Amino acid sequence: MSAASTEAEAGFAFAPKYDSAGLIGAIVQDAVSGEVLMFAFMDAEALAATRETRLAHFHSRSRGRLWQKGETSGNALHVHQILVDCDQDALVLKVRPTGPACHTGEFSCFYRELGPDGLSRLD
Amino acid sequence: MSAASTEAEAGFAFAPKYDSAGLIGAIVQDAVSGEVLMFAFMDAEALAATRETRLAHFHSRSRGRLWQKGETSGNALHVHQILVDCDQDALVLKVRPTGPACHTGEFSCFYRELGPDGLSRLD
Repeated sequence: MSAASTEAEAGFAFAPKYDSAGLIGAIVQDAVSGEVLMFAFMDAEALAATRETRLAHFHSRSRGRLWQKGETSGNALHVHQILVDCDQDALVLKVRPTGPACHTGEFSCFYRELGPDGLSRLD
Repeated sequence: MSAASTEAEAGFAFAPKYDSAGLIGAIVQDAVSGEVLMFAFMDAEALAATRETRLAHFHSRSRGRLWQKGETSGNALHVHQILVDCDQDALVLKVRPTGPACHTGEFSCFYRELGPDGLSRLD
């Protein structure tokens, strides 16, 4: 492939490439620290709600519906910036969290490291 | 759900939850700057190769095979740390890149921002 050869890669039209289930992966990153907080899926409805409200919305595959992060816990994610990747099939949401991003109560969902013999807690 | 209630969430056994296609999402993050560089999928083979060699390997859905990032471009990703999320269905690879992570020649695949009227280049 040549450098930035396609319209999706080089252009400025937003044309999100949803998967066969109508979903696109969204990486949630703390806008200040750069820490990756969580990973979830959006459908077109969740993406539209996020752009409209600037609060992160996702599509729950298990519940089959739109959800706003923090709708029950109160731990909403204020979206400062949305980045789009080269082939427009993944997003980065740069957010300011109002509390722990993980439903376990951890600040980030990525609180364990994989070593040769299994998982360990990050310091 | 109660805090860290399940073995997958609270335990230290690595039990990656692959999707129906046998894949798990991998967020690639620069170990130094924290910048998100790319997003790709791994299968069990790619994850094993990554853990063994400490070079990032993925599963290409379009080509249906294992690929080592940089195998043709030379722009390999040295993996310093692998983080696992609460329900073990997403990974963060903290890497040291040896060149641009994106096949377009950009340092990161996330080189555009989504605004109200479409995409714009990040500064």
